[in-house]
Amino acid sequence: MIKALYPGSFDPVTMGHMDIIRRASSIFDLLYVGVAANSNKKPAFDAGERVDFLHAAVEGIENVQVISFDRLLVDVARELGTQVIVKGLRAVSDYEYELQMAHINYKLAPDIETVFLAASTRYSYLSSSLVKEVAGLGGCVKDLVPPVVHDDIVRQLSRPHR
Amino acid sequence: MIKALYPGSFDPVTMGHMDIIRRASSIFDLLYVGVAANSNKKPAFDAGERVDFLHAAVEGIENVQVISFDRLLVDVARELGTQVIVKGLRAVSDYEYELQMAHINYKLAPDIETVFLAASTRYSYLSSSLVKEVAGLGGCVKDLVPPVVHDDIVRQLSRPHR
Amino acid sequence: MIKALYPGSFDPVTMGHMDIIRRASSIFDLLYVGVAANSNKKPAFDAGERVDFLHAAVEGIENVQVISFDRLLVDVARELGTQVIVKGLRAVSDYEYELQMAHINYKLAPDIETVFLAASTRYSYLSSSLVKEVAGLGGCVKDLVPPVVHDDIVRQLSRPHR
Amino acid sequence: MIKALYPGSFDPVTMGHMDIIRRASSIFDLLYVGVAANSNKKPAFDAGERVDFLHAAVEGIENVQVISFDRLLVDVARELGTQVIVKGLRAVSDYEYELQMAHINYKLAPDIETVFLAASTRYSYLSSSLVKEVAGLGGCVKDLVPPVVHDDIVRQLSRPHR
Amino acid sequence: MIKALYPGSFDPVTMGHMDIIRRASSIFDLLYVGVAANSNKKPAFDAGERVDFLHAAVEGIENVQVISFDRLLVDVARELGTQVIVKGLRAVSDYEYELQMAHINYKLAPDIETVFLAASTRYSYLSSSLVKEVAGLGGCVKDLVPPVVHDDIVRQLSRPHR
Amino acid sequence: MIKALYPGSFDPVTMGHMDIIRRASSIFDLLYVGVAANSNKKPAFDAGERVDFLHAAVEGIENVQVISFDRLLVDVARELGTQVIVKGLRAVSDYEYELQMAHINYKLAPDIETVFLAASTRYSYLSSSLVKEVAGLGGCVKDLVPPVVHDDIVRQLSRPHR
Repeated sequence: MIKALYPGSFDPVTMGHMDIIRRASSIFDLLYVGVAANSNKKPAFDAGERVDFLHAAVEGIENVQVISFDRLLVDVARELGTQVIVKGLRAVSDYEYELQMAHINYKLAPDIETVFLAASTRYSYLSSSLVKEVAGLGGCVKDLVPPVVHDDIVRQLSRPHR
Repeated sequence: MIKALYPGSFDPVTMGHMDIIRRASSIFDLLYVGVAANSNKKPAFDAGERVDFLHAAVEGIENVQVISFDRLLVDVARELGTQVIVKGLRAVSDYEYELQMAHINYKLAPDIETVFLAASTRYSYLSSSLVKEVAGLGGCVKDLVPPVVHDDIVRQLSRPHR
Repeated sequence: MIKALYPGSFDPVTMGHMDIIRRASSIFDLLYVGVAANSNKKPAFDAGERVDFLHAAVEGIENVQVISFDRLLVDVARELGTQVIVKGLRAVSDYEYELQMAHINYKLAPDIETVFLAASTRYSYLSSSLVKEVAGLGGCVKDLVPPVVHDDIVRQLSRPHR
Repeated sequence: MIKALYPGSFDPVTMGHMDIIRRASSIFDLLYVGVAANSNKKPAFDAGERVDFLHAAVEGIENVQVISFDRLLVDVARELGTQVIVKGLRAVSDYEYELQMAHINYKLAPDIETVFLAASTRYSYLSSSLVKEVAGLGGCVKDLVPPVVHDDIVRQLSRPHR
Repeated sequence: MIKALYPGSFDPVTMGHMDIIRRASSIFDLLYVGVAANSNKKPAFDAGERVDFLHAAVEGIENVQVISFDRLLVDVARELGTQVIVKGLRAVSDYEYELQMAHINYKLAPDIETVFLAASTRYSYLSSSLVKEVAGLGGCVKDLVPPVVHDDIVRQLSRPHR
Repeated sequence: MIKALYPGSFDPVTMGHMDIIRRASSIFDLLYVGVAANSNKKPAFDAGERVDFLHAAVEGIENVQVISFDRLLVDVARELGTQVIVKGLRAVSDYEYELQMAHINYKLAPDIETVFLAASTRYSYLSSSLVKEVAGLGGCVKDLVPPVVHDDIVRQLSRPHR
C-alpha cells in the first residue's frame, strides 16, 4: 500500500489543486492533502478555513484525507508513513523552486521520494494568488475554484480592508 | 498493484538512469524499463545492445523488467497494464520537452499518468550524449555509467569511424 | 490599415497555428500567412503541399492570404507593406529563440515590429513535430490539425519509408 | 481603428517603458497608457505622481493618452473600447508571469487579445525596481529614465527615510 | 595582481557560499567577501553577526578578506581596486537576476567585469533562505553551513518569535 | 600569472565572440582562444579558415593567442597550463548547456575552473548560426562580424550550394 502526501498552502484551494488531487488519488492507495498552517507569507484565509474548504472540496473522493501541519514536511511524511510527496508543476519558475525543495527533502529524508505531476493545460495559469487578485477586484472566479466553496471564497475576498 | 513504465533511448544507460530506476522501483510495485528501439536520431548503440546493457545493469533489482518497443508510448503502457509513466527531470529545457510529451500522452490516454522524478544533484548534469562525447574523446566515464557495462561501452565508443 | 505577416514552416499546419491565425486576423486589417519554403531542416511536406493545406484551412477567414517565400523575412515584409510580424509563443525555449529572431529583424529593419501572441492553453503543447511523431506511430491527431486537411496529412505521414 | 492599452505600475516610468510606448504607438491607431493606481506592492510614487511623470514623458507623441485605473484590467479595456492589451517582455521570468496574466485575461474576456513586444536589447535589463535601487544608493540613472522627469525622480528617491 | 569582490547578503553564510569563496580565491590573487549591510529585505542576522560568521568561516584561507558595505556595489569595487565582481549561479531564476545586475553594473562602471561561477552540483539547491526555513522548523542543517558557525546559527534561528 | 582558455566553434567568429575576447583579455594575464577543430556538427568553415579569421580579428590585442584543438577540453587546458576556462552566456538555454559542460569538466579536472561572462546586451541575440542564416539569404551582417573578416565571410556564405 503506497501512501502519498500532497502539501501546500491552499490559500485558497483552486481547481488546479483539485486536478492534482484527483489524479494523485487515482495513482496512490491513500492521499493525504496537507495544509501548511503557518507559512511565512501572511495568508488570506486562516488554517482552519483552508482545511474546511478542502474538506468540502474533496468530499466523495474516498481515498483522500485532509490534515494540517506546522512542522518540517519530511517529519510529517514520516509520521504518516507516506513514502511519497506529491507536487504539481506549472511554469518553469515553479519547477526550479520545487526542485530545490525536493533536493533538500531528499537530503533530510532519503527514504521519501518527491514525485511531480504536470498541471493540466487548462489550469496551467491558475494559482491561489490569481484567484485572490481577480476576486478582490470583483472579477469572476467561477471556473477557478471548486463550486462547493466558491461563494464562501468570494464573500471573504471581496470584504473591504482585506 | 501499481505498475509503472520508465521509457527512454538509453543510448547508453547512465548512472543518472540507474538513479531514477532505483528510486522508481522503490515507489512502484513493478517497474518496466522501456527502450525506444527506433528513435529518430541515429543511435550509437543498436536496440539489442541497449537492452543488454540495461539487463546487466538492473540485475539484482527484483521488481524491474527491461523491454524494448517501437510503437506509441501510451499503446505500450496500455498493453503492459501500467497506469503510470515515469520520467526523470534535469534541466529546465528537459522540463519543457517532457511537459509537452506528458500533455500529448494525457490527451491520447487520459487514464495513464506521467510522474516526474528530479535527477539527484550529483547526476543533474549527466546525459547519454555527454557520455558519448567524453568517451569518444578518450575521457574517463567511470563514474558516469554502470560499472558492469563500463568496459563494453567505452570499447565501442572509442572505435574509430563511429 | 495595419497589415501583418505570420511566418512559419507550417510542416504541417496545426490547430495551434489556426488559433494564432484566427486571433491575429481579428486584430489586424489584413494577415498574410507566410510559408518559409526552403528551411534548413528537411521538411516532411514540400512547400506546395504546405501552402495547399493552409489554403484549405483558412478558407472562410476573409482577411487572410497565404503566400510562400524563400528570402529574408524582413525583405518579404517590406515588399508586402506589412509593418508587423506576428509570432506565437508556447514554451520558454520558444520564447528565447523568437526573441533572438525579433532582435535580429529589428536590427535589419527597425521600422518593422514583431508582436507575440501566447498560444492558447489548450494548444500550448502542440507543434508540427509532435503531429508528425504521433501520426507516424499511428496515433490519433484528430484534434491536433484542421479537420479539412486531417486525412491528407495522416495519409502522407503514415506512408512507409518517410 | 485599432485601440490598445499598455498597463503597468510605472513606479516610476523608465526608458524601457518609453521604448514600448513609442513602438506600440507606431503600430496601433491609439494607445492608452494605463497606470495601475492601487497595486498590492507599496509604490514609491503615488498614482498622481506616476501619471504626471508619464504625461510629461509622452508629450509630443500624438496618439498616446495616459489614464489611471484601479479595477480589473479587462473591464478597463472594455470600457475604453480597446481590443488589444500590450505588454513588454524582458527576461524569461517576466514571460511566465505575463503568460499567466494573458491566459486569465483571455478567460475573463476572450474578445480582448494580449500582444507582447520584446524589450529592445539596450533596455533588456532595465526595470523600475532597478532605478529605485540605483538612485536610492546615489548611482546615476540618467540614461534609465526619461530626461524630462529625471530630476524629479532622483530628488524623491534620494529623500532620506523613503 | 587581480583582485576580486564577492558580494552578497550572507544571511547566513552557507556551504554554497564557501564553495564559491574557495574556488574564487584559487583563481584570483585577492578575494574580498563583501557583506551588503543594508539590504531591502529584513535580514535574520544583523550585519555584524553576518561578518563575524564569515570571518570564522574563512579563517585559514590566506587571500580572503571580509568587509561590509552599504553603498553602490561598483563604488565599493572601485574603492577597493577590484576589477572583477564574482557571483555564484544556481538556478535559471538566479541567472536572470544576476544578468540584470551584471548589465546595470557594466553600464555604471564598464571597467569592472562580473564573472560567474556555477554552484557545485552538491550545493545547487542550497540558499540562505532554505537554511533559515529548515533550521526554524527544527530540521538538521549540519551539512548546509560551515561547521565552525553551525551552533551559533542554529541557536539564533530556533529562538522563538524570530 | 593567470592564464585562461576561451573555447568554441567560432564558425565563424562574431562580434559577440570579440566582446568576450576583449573583456576576458582585460581580466586575465594571457587568453588562449581555442578553436574546436572537429565538432560533431558539420561546420560551414573548416578549422583552418576559422583560425585564420580569429587571427585577423584579434590582431593588436597583445595577450591573446589563437590555437585549435581536437581533444578533450580539460586536457588542452592542462597542457596549456590554464587554470581557467572562459565561456560567454547569452540566453537561458545557453546557460543550461554551459552549466552541464562546466560540471562535467569540473568532475574530469577539479583544478580547472569555468568562469562565465554575460554577453553584452547589444550582442545578446547574436550567434554564428544567425550570421550564417542572414548572410546566406543575402542580409547585411556588417555589424555582426569583425570588419576585417566581413568580406571573406560573406563571400563564402553566399556561395551557391553551400
